[in-house]
This record gives sequence, structure tokens and C-alpha cells, in this order.
Amino acid sequence: MFFHVQKLINEIIPDEPDPAAANALQEGLGGQFGEMRTMMQYLFQSFNFRGKAKPYLDLIQGIGVEEISHVELIATTINHLLDGSPRYRGEIPANGATPLNIALKEGNIHHFLVGAQGALPIDAAGNPWSGSYVYNSGNLVLDLLNNLVLEATGRLQKCRLYEMTNNKTARSTIAYLIVRDEVHEKAYAKALETLGVQWGKILPIPKFDASKMPEVKRLMDMGLHNQLHHWRLDGSEMSKIFHGPSPAQDGTLTTTQKPPEGAPIKLGEARPEEFAPGLTSELEKLIQQIEAVKV
Amino acid sequence: MFFHVQKLINEIIPDEPDPAAANALQEGLGGQFGEMRTMMQYLFQSFNFRGKAKPYLDLIQGIGVEEISHVELIATTINHLLDGSPRYRGEIPANGATPLNIALKEGNIHHFLVGAQGALPIDAAGNPWSGSYVYNSGNLVLDLLNNLVLEATGRLQKCRLYEMTNNKTARSTIAYLIVRDEVHEKAYAKALETLGVQWGKILPIPKFDASKMPEVKRLMDMGLHNQLHHWRLDGSEMSKIFHGPSPAQDGTLTTTQKPPEGAPIKLGEARPEEFAPGLTSELEKLIQQIEAVKV
Amino acid sequence: MFFHVQKLINEIIPDEPDPAAANALQEGLGGQFGEMRTMMQYLFQSFNFRGKAKPYLDLIQGIGVEEISHVELIATTINHLLDGSPRYRGEIPANGATPLNIALKEGNIHHFLVGAQGALPIDAAGNPWSGSYVYNSGNLVLDLLNNLVLEATGRLQKCRLYEMTNNKTARSTIAYLIVRDEVHEKAYAKALETLGVQWGKILPIPKFDASKMPEVKRLMDMGLHNQLHHWRLDGSEMSKIFHGPSPAQDGTLTTTQKPPEGAPIKLGEARPEEFAPGLTSELEKLIQQIEAVKV
Amino acid sequence: MFFHVQKLINEIIPDEPDPAAANALQEGLGGQFGEMRTMMQYLFQSFNFRGKAKPYLDLIQGIGVEEISHVELIATTINHLLDGSPRYRGEIPANGATPLNIALKEGNIHHFLVGAQGALPIDAAGNPWSGSYVYNSGNLVLDLLNNLVLEATGRLQKCRLYEMTNNKTARSTIAYLIVRDEVHEKAYAKALETLGVQWGKILPIPKFDASKMPEVKRLMDMGLHNQLHHWRLDGSEMSKIFHGPSPAQDGTLTTTQKPPEGAPIKLGEARPEEFAPGLTSELEKLIQQIEAVKV
Amino acid sequence: MFFHVQKLINEIIPDEPDPAAANALQEGLGGQFGEMRTMMQYLFQSFNFRGKAKPYLDLIQGIGVEEISHVELIATTINHLLDGSPRYRGEIPANGATPLNIALKEGNIHHFLVGAQGALPIDAAGNPWSGSYVYNSGNLVLDLLNNLVLEATGRLQKCRLYEMTNNKTARSTIAYLIVRDEVHEKAYAKALETLGVQWGKILPIPKFDASKMPEVKRLMDMGLHNQLHHWRLDGSEMSKIFHGPSPAQDGTLTTTQKPPEGAPIKLGEARPEEFAPGLTSELEKLIQQIEAVKV
Amino acid sequence: MFFHVQKLINEIIPDEPDPAAANALQEGLGGQFGEMRTMMQYLFQSFNFRGKAKPYLDLIQGIGVEEISHVELIATTINHLLDGSPRYRGEIPANGATPLNIALKEGNIHHFLVGAQGALPIDAAGNPWSGSYVYNSGNLVLDLLNNLVLEATGRLQKCRLYEMTNNKTARSTIAYLIVRDEVHEKAYAKALETLGVQWGKILPIPKFDASKMPEVKRLMDMGLHNQLHHWRLDGSEMSKIFHGPSPAQDGTLTTTQKPPEGAPIKLGEARPEEFAPGLTSELEKLIQQIEAVKV
Repeated sequence: MFFHVQKLINEIIPDEPDPAAANALQEGLGGQFGEMRTMMQYLFQSFNFRGKAKPYLDLIQGIGVEEISHVELIATTINHLLDGSPRYRGEIPANGATPLNIALKEGNIHHFLVGAQGALPIDAAGNPWSGSYVYNSGNLVLDLLNNLVLEATGRLQKCRLYEMTNNKTARSTIAYLIVRDEVHEKAYAKALETLGVQWGKILPIPKFDASKMPEVKRLMDMGLHNQLHHWRLDGSEMSKIFHGPSPAQDGTLTTTQKPPEGAPIKLGEARPEEFAPGLTSELEKLIQQIEAVKV
Repeated sequence: MFFHVQKLINEIIPDEPDPAAANALQEGLGGQFGEMRTMMQYLFQSFNFRGKAKPYLDLIQGIGVEEISHVELIATTINHLLDGSPRYRGEIPANGATPLNIALKEGNIHHFLVGAQGALPIDAAGNPWSGSYVYNSGNLVLDLLNNLVLEATGRLQKCRLYEMTNNKTARSTIAYLIVRDEVHEKAYAKALETLGVQWGKILPIPKFDASKMPEVKRLMDMGLHNQLHHWRLDGSEMSKIFHGPSPAQDGTLTTTQKPPEGAPIKLGEARPEEFAPGLTSELEKLIQQIEAVKV
Repeated sequence: MFFHVQKLINEIIPDEPDPAAANALQEGLGGQFGEMRTMMQYLFQSFNFRGKAKPYLDLIQGIGVEEISHVELIATTINHLLDGSPRYRGEIPANGATPLNIALKEGNIHHFLVGAQGALPIDAAGNPWSGSYVYNSGNLVLDLLNNLVLEATGRLQKCRLYEMTNNKTARSTIAYLIVRDEVHEKAYAKALETLGVQWGKILPIPKFDASKMPEVKRLMDMGLHNQLHHWRLDGSEMSKIFHGPSPAQDGTLTTTQKPPEGAPIKLGEARPEEFAPGLTSELEKLIQQIEAVKV
Repeated sequence: MFFHVQKLINEIIPDEPDPAAANALQEGLGGQFGEMRTMMQYLFQSFNFRGKAKPYLDLIQGIGVEEISHVELIATTINHLLDGSPRYRGEIPANGATPLNIALKEGNIHHFLVGAQGALPIDAAGNPWSGSYVYNSGNLVLDLLNNLVLEATGRLQKCRLYEMTNNKTARSTIAYLIVRDEVHEKAYAKALETLGVQWGKILPIPKFDASKMPEVKRLMDMGLHNQLHHWRLDGSEMSKIFHGPSPAQDGTLTTTQKPPEGAPIKLGEARPEEFAPGLTSELEKLIQQIEAVKV
Repeated sequence: MFFHVQKLINEIIPDEPDPAAANALQEGLGGQFGEMRTMMQYLFQSFNFRGKAKPYLDLIQGIGVEEISHVELIATTINHLLDGSPRYRGEIPANGATPLNIALKEGNIHHFLVGAQGALPIDAAGNPWSGSYVYNSGNLVLDLLNNLVLEATGRLQKCRLYEMTNNKTARSTIAYLIVRDEVHEKAYAKALETLGVQWGKILPIPKFDASKMPEVKRLMDMGLHNQLHHWRLDGSEMSKIFHGPSPAQDGTLTTTQKPPEGAPIKLGEARPEEFAPGLTSELEKLIQQIEAVKV
Repeated sequence: MFFHVQKLINEIIPDEPDPAAANALQEGLGGQFGEMRTMMQYLFQSFNFRGKAKPYLDLIQGIGVEEISHVELIATTINHLLDGSPRYRGEIPANGATPLNIALKEGNIHHFLVGAQGALPIDAAGNPWSGSYVYNSGNLVLDLLNNLVLEATGRLQKCRLYEMTNNKTARSTIAYLIVRDEVHEKAYAKALETLGVQWGKILPIPKFDASKMPEVKRLMDMGLHNQLHHWRLDGSEMSKIFHGPSPAQDGTLTTTQKPPEGAPIKLGEARPEEFAPGLTSELEKLIQQIEAVKV
């Protein structure tokens, strides 16, 4: 059973809208190595888990639950990058005006035509997310190895995204996910270490001097690259694996008992040029009556 | 942010394995009108929500969170229907034996070949789940109408599944989802009622004498067809909409403050014929050491 | 602009339902070389036609219009093969009954679960029809050659379907389409003949002694393998091409001025086990009022 | 059986070519809520229709036939927007010239590379049309509700397209389809009204002051937003439903007995840079002989 | 540049046709972890290779070339399993006969309807092979890790196939590929060993007592599980990596300088019921003239 | 069995990088009528070949083998067009720099985000290559006709690519493939000629004055438009068909006994901004040790 708190797992820094960056970030949401894949892959692996290796189940499933919050974070980031990008506010435009003309020129036209300046379950090239991305062989060693490759590839792509844009909104989430993908990479590497593998000097993948990416470094200085929360209201055994020396030889792993505070979520404003939410004043009055209901 | 409790939202009744029924249930999991779609559609609609109509956001998102638990429930049900269906237990088979021969004859061969007798993110005809299923126009009235059609179609398909199999494992989850889809249908119908629509006698869709389906009737007698929980650790305004007379004219809607107890989850056993989890005795010993860790 | 008459282009012979044959016929409807492809390919080629070669446009478009009627015919044939295949009639079944159990065993489960014992826009392996099937290069010679390959492949597949089933319903439509695909093949071959190609002895493809297929021979004896109607209410120039000796050296081509009579269409009955159309007696009464309206 | 007249259902206003606008309009042709979907969905629903509710069948099928003409109209509009966009006319270009260079910069490269400056069965993001878009549950109330959502979503997208471009060619067809989608929306809303639903103030969806879109208003002033033709050569019962007060409370619905006049279709010119139709002078002479044939 | 010898890389043992086994083997050909994927993945990785690590390039590319021969082997095996499965030989059947009736009952109908009892580029559930399967991140460590997971998953699936059928034709190729996938797994594991990784006791994946699979053991006794040929006419540096102790601790790796002898390929016979090759006696005579040409 | 020489089948002329041209060339690699399709189609047709017409098998398979080298050539060409397009060389960029910003503006973002400035198995609109492209009906005449249409369409698209870009790198490969597609077109046309077809004046398709494309003319002056090599180490009977007068009436066909010399392949340099190959100095040292191994 799953529960929700209406907060973001990390703060999004405000900046100008940028639909091309929004489109790039779709890879991190709906791409073959994006957050929808990690979320679904770990949930399926935990629903289908075989054998008695409870700490391994709790580790995979705990990361899976964190990924749902990542989906929420990156979708919201994409919204912020899209929202208002047509630089148009107010009423439905008068004759001749083309407030959505930007849609013909930047990013993915579906962000303005199918969605209403909001995130979509697609990748940066417009391919819809596919269930065929989910890997769940049932063989524990293989599932762990695939998870490691998945996290490392996701992190590689986010490092490339970092170098595509310096929009602060985009980078605040990209940097956060570079760090979290690294933690997840280590979690699976550590689990394989318990089964006898030694990683030498290859971790994390990709390996580089993080001081070149100050937004990333800031989060590492806070220790976020070595901490994992279990996201369970009924306790978890994941810490039996996720503790002790990092398999990347850069500190000590910690399973935290307290979830992060979370950042407030700002609701999107109405966009008349998108007919979203598209309410007439008559319908708005009906909604205000509902909001006034006491229950 | 999302949280988890390692329990099922409803109990699964034990019965014989049945891979053909397992395959049929995949439609309810990964089909165009299955639980993965409802979950993703409502989460995207809430992440991309525009305007100030907070109770409507909370309603859509609350149902979305319940759907994650439905994905967990139906995936686990499919596992129970698959697990052990080859009627083979024990070591890797000796020469000449074909313990997985059933895979050539019943259901979807991928359940035995790609997965290890476990659920997959596909429909009953083998199509992988697609992001193109998610509907999120940004227009509130349209999103609510589409959600209503989605729930009613999901319920229609589950009614048809009910008539395809009388396996108790399958039916316990089918019956539960027939009732829950009905509640969600009513939730969206009620939300449209607050905007001025009157439904006459068409609800619920499909409409039939539930006493013909005793497993469904049992849950309705417990009132489950008129109750909704909000699944929020930080409160919810959904009850401003979900209360008062049912739009199907069959009782009173209630938003519950306490989540269900949940049913325990039984972990799948090792299946040597699937090499799942495929651990040698050496690796099993390493895992036992991890399980013995005190943290 | 398009118009309709509620009749079938050829008669369907009644026989027992057969869901496996119905599924096989889906290839002829929604397969890569089925009627939806021919219809869409010729319509796109005619909408996008370049140059002044009017008789060629009229030929391609005229065949395209005939193909819409073929889609209607084969979809209806599939319905007849599916309808009643569960051998169940009457009310929603009582507890324990599984009137749709056949769906787990024969044909494509989607015929019973997604559709209501009716045709779907998919092929015999369950793949949905795709726009990528449509070939329209804009080069006239290439488009004609591709159309010839398309018709010949469609005909080849229908010949194979003929050998898969002897259900009379299935065979009446299969035989008709074998003959019509042959005519269309000749039409494109003849158009290429006007551009200088000589076909030798390779036509029609595939080439065989039609007397082995009596249902086909009966239609050929009526001359249906050498006639084409133009389906235009405002006249057509296609006969400038489609006349004279057949490129398969088996008679004389004729463009007919009168459309076929058409066969009556029998409406499907209600199927309570499918909740289709799923009307309660209250709703049926409302519908009877509408039927009684005089306008 | 289907018939054709070589005329367009509405006039296309000439303007400059615009490949980016052409690409945007592809959503209206081959998108998930475009005209190919409506056409196929209503045709399948009518081929698979169950029960005796003849006026409902005639309504759905009649709209389906109109949609074929919409496919013809929007495909032709896309052609006009693409044709000549490279600003190149005449012979195959000399060495070094790149008459198709525009294809690397604007719209969808497939319009120039796979097609010959002509429409394709894809959406504005390049996804091919898919048979999985077609909804046909067999449950009459659900099919009508889905049709309503489909038309309203199509109309929403066309309103957004209106705000993306002020090219007159594009807008003449966009405006026409905004009005026709509204009529179809009302037709399904009215059909549900006959089954007891009351729509309050939510129709049409989206709802806005049409005087902001003069091209739309002009057509409404002609009454096109409340008229439906049946497109049947053998009569129709659809008027039993489609008459009386509009469910959007904006006038009276009328089923017209006479089809529209139709606008002439201008054939595309040869485009040597596309090798379309790609005829040498030898082949052109052969074609002229065919055109001179008297039959 | 690539070259060919018309021989198979391993012998196929004759046995009865078995279309269900043929369909299962499609996973090994066109599945997400089948031979078409390995072939394309390694070829793309080598075409796109960056940096000076020549032995790594030669290793990846050499395995890629071997995979083309695996595609040839498994496609031919599927043919042998399909060919003659309808138990029909001779002329096109007389009226009433249904020589292809088996297509409605076993395996994938496309094997008889789209192909002519021959292999298709699809998986065991009928999904066409997709370019999205190819992994080529450009990061050397990640590409090697993914290749390892790919080979191990391919081997896991072939082990499961082994347990699905004891048809000798199927098993001769399955056993061969289990052994070759193991060698490729070791090749990538060894390459990662040179970069500092130590694998402990997890290799090969999956790990089991091969004496339970005598067809596999026979090939291992010949040493095939530790040998790799480079398939290059111009020499190769792959042996700099592929030599010395096996990372699975089961012997010594050897790069062979001489390719295997190869087994003769038996051409498929004509199948009149498939109209394949579908030659009339007139056409056969023309072909005999070509065969008699001296050049 | 397949073999390899690490050389390109034709030389690539150096020029500036151009990611938009790289993207356009993807159609020739991974498009529906690109080299991956021709390669796979001819290999499947030869693996599944039926009947005794050995020269026809050898012709189809020989061309298939050449196509693997075409895949190698065009993939490498795309690499050259992408490599260095960000105009960035050296270390990972400092904070604020966005060396991959070009990815948001030109071509396909996946070339920089999923690949590392390297070719992908997709078309110019981003669709992944699909197994459904492969045509192999088993009917010899139809397979030959489809192959002819395939080559002619591939050639048509390459002629259009020629007119999209004058980048010398792009054009050197485009011109080569225009000529080779013409040869393959003639090969299939000739094979059909042996079965009685006469092509008149329609070949080659498309037909134009090649002197307008000097890069093409240069290769034709060398006779490359009438020569075919058999690519077999064990001899071939293809010359029984491929000899004598060209079916395009432009010279004499020759089957060459000696393969082309081949052009050297230049390995891509490391791209730090892509983390490709992403080796730290520690890992580079390990690799140098491997390169120093004597075996």
C-alpha cells in the first residue's frame, strides 16, 4: 500500500521558462533510462521477488518508492520550464494573434498541443514510454547488475543534460538526480559486493571531478551522495546492505530513518491560451461553492 | 513524496495456479484501460494540474495513489496464478525433462521465458504498456470525463474477466477491482455533478444486477462501493467533493479517514527451473550473513 | 466527399462461429497487407497525387474507395465468425458460470475482452494497424509497382487463409477478396503496361489452377476477376486504362458503369455476457421512444 | 458500400506555403485525436454495432462517413502548406544546389524525404497512426461517451492549432474543423441526452467566446455549428436523434437532406526536386496517349 | 567490409517439425535479448567506438561478427522446426482440404501466413525486433557491463528454452548457444577484469550444474565454453584480452586462429501450400535455363 | 558464416561536422527503406530460401552481405558528421559552460544524449528500426519485385538527401549509395527479366540526368553502376544472372571476382563532454597494459 505527502522531494530553483530544456528533460522522465523506468522496474522486481533474501527486496523496493517521488519532481520541473514559455498571459487572444506560435519552433509541439504546457510520459525524441523497458529476469544477480547499469546510464544522461543547459530550474533537478542516481548505483553495487564482487576503481560510472559541476558538489557536500531513506511506514531491512564503506571508496553509506522535509509545490496557474483548466465564470462559481464546503 | 507499507490493499484467496487466467488478468494490469494507465494518468494529471480547484486536485491525486496499490495487488495476483503452474518443484531437471513445457501451450510464453513466473507490464495480447495511453488534456472538464470513461471501461473489462474464469485467486482480485472501479467512476461522476451535469439512470457503467456476482456482492454489502480513502499523510480536501448522495443513486458517498488494514504479502519461493533467484549454495551463505547483520 | 449505402459489397454465407478463423481473418483486415492498408494507401496516394495524369489518379482513387467497402465486408465477416462463439445466450450468467471461458483458449482474447465479439483494427498476431504501412513515395512508377506488390501479397495471404479454414462464412469472403485482389493487381499491372512494362507469364501472383478453389472459381465464372467499378458519383477516367486485354492474358478488362446491388447487413444481437450494448430496460424504453420519433 | 465525388467538403483559402504549420496540422490528421481516428472509430463502431437502436447506428455511421471527407480535406490542406515550400521550381538542380535544404530546418523531414511534399499518416510529433487509438467497447453508453470526449479533445487541439499559426490556408481548415467537431460533440451529447443525461453548462468543450476567432464565427453565422448531413444514398434515421434544441443551448439542431456543394480540388504540380511524379518525357508521351483514349 | 561462406557455424540435428518450439526459439532470434540484438549492439558499438583501446574494439566487433552467424544458425533452426509441420506435401490442395489448418492451433500464425514456414524478425510473443533494444552509451565501462548483462540474460532465456522442449533440432541449437553465450559473457567479464573488477563466484550467470544438460556438457567437453575465434581476415588484437584464466574459474581462455569448419546448409524444398517459391512449370523452365548458364 | 575486414567499402571525404545532415542520413541507415532493412531483408530471404534456384539465392544473399558493409559505411559517415559538432574539445567543461547546447537546437538530441555523437538504429524522424520492415513472402517473384521496389525507394530517398545538403562527407556516401542502389535495382530487375518480364524505359527508378550530380557521375564513369561483387569466400553462382545487357539499357553487367580494396577506418577520439569512453587516468593505464600484451 502506498501513501502520499503533497511535497516535492527536492526544491526547484526558479528561472526563465525554456521549452527546449523542458524537452531535453523528458529523457530523464520518460526515456529508456529515465525515472518512470527505474520506478516501474524496481516495483515489478519487488512485486515479483522470489526467495528469502528480505534485505535485498527491501533495498530494491525502497529505491522504487523513492523513484515515484523522482517522477513527481522531474515532471514538476518540466512544467516550470514550459509554463509561460509562450510569454502570453490573460484572455484568449484576439483575432490574428498566435500566442502558441512558439510551439512550431522549439522543443516538442506536443507540450503545447496535446498537453497544456505540462510534462508528458515520453522521451526527448518524442517516443512514448514503453513497458518493454522494464527488466525483471527473476535472477537476483542479473536483476542487480541490470539495476546498476540502469542507474549509471541514467546518471550519464543527466551529466550530458547538465552540459546542454544552464537554466537554473533545469539544473537544480538535474544536479539532484545526478547525486541520487549515484546513491542508487552504489546501493546496487554494494548489494553485489555482499555477493562477492569487487569493483576496483570503476565506480561511480561515469567518473569525473564533481567540482566541475558546482550544483552537484553542493549536494555532495551535504552528504546526499551516500544516504538512502527507506520510505517505509512499517520499517525496512535495507540498512543491512546499505551501510559501511561506499563501493566507490568515497565515504560511508548511511540509511536514514527520517524522510526529507520536502519542498512546497506551487500549483500551475490557469492558461487561457491552452483552454486549461478552461473554466467559464459560471463553472468557476460552482467550484468556489465546493471549495467552501466544510467536511 | 510517496511512502510504502509492505501490505496488500486487499486479500488474495488461494487457489490452483492457472497461467491462462494469469494472462487474461494482464489486461487489468498493463492494458490500455488497466491499473498502470489509471495510476499514471491520475499522477500526471495531478503533477500538471492548473488552477485553484484544490479539492479536484486532491480527488484525482488521491485516486492515483490508490491505483499504485492496485498495481501491486493485481501484479501479485498474477504471480499467484503463475507460480508453480508447471507443477515442478525442486532441482534443475535432469536430461530430457521439460518442466517448462507448459509455456508452449498456455497463456503467454513470456511469463516463463522473459519473466520467472511473474507479472509483466503488458496486456493480455502481449502488447507492452505505452505512455501514449495517458490522457491529460489540461482541460478540467475533459480530464474528468476521460477519467470517467477510463474507469467505466476498466470495470467493463473486469466484468468480462469475471465471466472468463472461476479461479478463486483471480476472482478475488477481479471482484475487488469491479467494486473499486465503480467507486472511482462515481468519484469522477460526482465531480462532474458539482459542475452541473446530471447523470440520469446511466450509472454505474456497465449496469447490472450485482447479485449475479456473489464475490462482488459481498464487498458491496460491506459498503466498499461507496467509500474512498484519501491516502494522504498530510490531509486532503477530496471529501468536499466525495460525500453526499451517490450519482448512481445507490447510497451515500463517504471519504474514510483511516486506511484499510491491508493483507500480508507472501514472498514467492525459489523456482530452480527458472533459475530464479538462481543462487548457488555459496551465494546463499553470503546472503544469510547479510540477513544476520544487526543495524 | 464520400457517401454510403448500408449494404455489403458481397454476400456472406452463414456458418458456425469460429473464433480462431476470425482471428486469422484479422490479417486481411488490419494486417500489413490487409484492406485497411490498401484503403489508406490509395486514398493518401490520390490526395497527394502530382501531375496531370488524371486517368491514373482516378484508377488509384477508385480502387481506394472500393477498399473502404472491403474493410466493411471483412470486419462484418469477422463479427459473424465471433458472434455467439461462446455458445451462450440470454441473461448475465449466474455465479460460477463462465460464459466467456472460450476467450482463454481460442483466437485473440481481445475479441472478447476489449471488443464485444467484434472486429478490431489489428492483424492476426495482435499487432495494431500502423500508419507506417502506407507507401506513398510520390514517384508514379514506384507507387504503381508498390501497389502491385501490395495487392499480390494480400492475395497470397488470402490464398493461405483459404487453406487454413473451410468455414463457409470465412471462405465466402476470402474467395471474394482473392478475386478482387487479382483485379486490383491487374489494374496496376495494366497501368504499368501503359508505361511500357511487359509482364510475360508471371501474372497473376500467385499463379495457380483456380479450379482447386471452387468458391473462387464460381466468382471467376461470373467474370468478377476482370471487372472494376469506379465508385464515383461524378464520373471517372479510369476506364482509359482499365480496358482491353488482361495483362494476365486471361480475358478482357471492363470498367463497369453500375455498382453491384449489394447484400443486406444483419445487425448483431445484444450479448449480455459482453454487456453490449448493455442497456437496462429503463434505457431500452428511452430508445424505443426515439425510434418512434417521426421526422 | 462507399461512393465518392472528387470535391472537397470545404474550401481551402490560398496562402504562402508553411512546412511548420503543415507539420502542426498532422496532429489533426494522424494524431491520437485526429480525423483518421474519428473516421476509423465510428466506422468500426458501426460495423460492430449490436442491438436494435437503428437511429444511434445511423448517427454514428453518418458522422463516420463525414470524417472520411475530413481526412481528405486536412490531407489536402497539409499538401497546400508543403507544396513549393522549398521555393524551388523547374528542373533537377545543378551541382551544388540544395533545393530541399529547408527539410533540415523546418517541420518534419519526412514530408520531403519519405513523402513528396505531401501529407503522411502520422501526428505532429512524427508518430505513425495506430489502430490502438480506436475505441469500440460495444457498450452503447460508453461508446457515446468516448466519442464525445474524442470530439471535444479534437476540437481543443484545433483551438490550440488556431493559436499557433495565422496562415490563411491552415486557418481555413482549422476553423472549419473547430465548427464540425462542435457539431459532432453535440450529436453525441444529444444521443446521451436521449438516454437521460443533462449536460448543464459544460458544453461545448472547450467553451469560449467564438468572436475571438473570426474565421470560426463566420461559419457559425452560416449555421454550420448546428447542422449535420447524413451522407447516405439510401436514407437515414439519424434525424430522430439530431433535431430539436442543442444540448449546448445555442440554437436548434438540423439534419440536412442535401449534401454541401463541395469545393473543387486542384491537382498538385510536378516537383522535379522530389522526382515526383518523376516522369521522363518518354513516359509523359505514353501517358498523353492514355489521356487521349476514348472510352 | 563483410564476407560470407555458405555454411552453418554449428550442425543442426534433424528431428520432427514442431511449430510451438519454433515459435519459442524466435525469442532467441528476434527477442530483446536475442541474437539480432547482440549482433546489432556489438556492430553499432564498434562502428561508434571512441578512444585508442584497440583490443577492446576488436573484441566487441569480433563477437559481433560471430553473432551474424548465430542469426543465420537460429533462423535456419526455426525453419527446420516449421518446415513440413502441416504434414502436407504435394500440389495445391483440392477443395475442402485445409493443409494449413495447424496455423490456427499452434505457435504463431504469422509463420504460415506472412512467412512461408520460415523464421521472422520477431520474438516469441510476436513483437517485431526494435532498434530501441540496441545499447551503445559510448562509455566503455558501461557498454561492457551492458554487454555482460545482455549475454547473461540471453543465456538465461536459452536455459529456460532448454526446459521447454526436448525436440532434438531445437536443443542442438539451444545447447550450442548456451555455451557460446557463456563464452561471450566471459569475454566481457574478462575485459572488465582488465579494468579492475573481480567477479568472485557469481559467474557464469546463470550458474548451475551443466551435467544436467547433456547436450550442453558435450560441447563443454570439447572446450567450446572457453574458446573465441576472431572472424577477421586481417588479424585481430582481441587475444590481448581473451586469454589466461577464465573469470568463471573453470579453465583457460583461448582465442583460436582457425574458424570452425562449418556445417552444410540444406535448402528448403518447395511448399505448394504456401505458394513458395510458387513457380509454374513455365517459370521453372526459365530458371533451369539460368542454372545451365556457364560463366 | 560471416567474416570481417576492418576497412570501409568506400572512402568518406572529410568536411565540417553537420548534425542536421547526420540526422537526415539516419533515414538511409535505420529508415524503412534504409540499409538495415535491405541487409536484414536479403539475409532473411536467403536463410528462408525455398526451391532449387541456386543462382537466385546466391544473388539475394550476396547483395545482403554487401548491405552489411553499407550499414558500416553509413554509420561511420554519420559519426563523422556528428563528431565534434559541439565545437568543444578537451576536459569536462567548467561550471556554467554548456558544450552540448547544440543538442537542443539541431538534428536529433538523442545523438548527444543517448549516443555519444554516434549513429543510432533509427530513422530521420527518430523512429527505431523495426523488424516489421522486413518483407519475405517466400514467393520468389514477389520477393524479387519487393526487393526492386525497396532498392528504388532507397535510391529515391538518397537522391532527395543529395538535394538537402552539400556537405562533402555526407555527399560522398550519398553518391556512393545512389550508385549501389542502382546496381541492386538492376540485379533484381535482371532476375525478373530471366523470368520473362520486360521493363521498357522505366529503369532505373528514379530516372534522371546523372550529370546534374557530379559526385554520382564520377562513380558511374568508373563503371560502379554496372558491377556487383559476390562477397563469398567459397564462390557464387550469382553471375549466371548478373551478366549481359543492363535492364536499364545503359551498358553491360559484370560480376567482379575481386572485392574492392577498401578504405581505412579512422577511430573516433575521446569526447570528454560525452564521458565517452569516459576513462580516468587510472583506467587508461590499465588499458595501456593490455595493449602492451604480446600474444
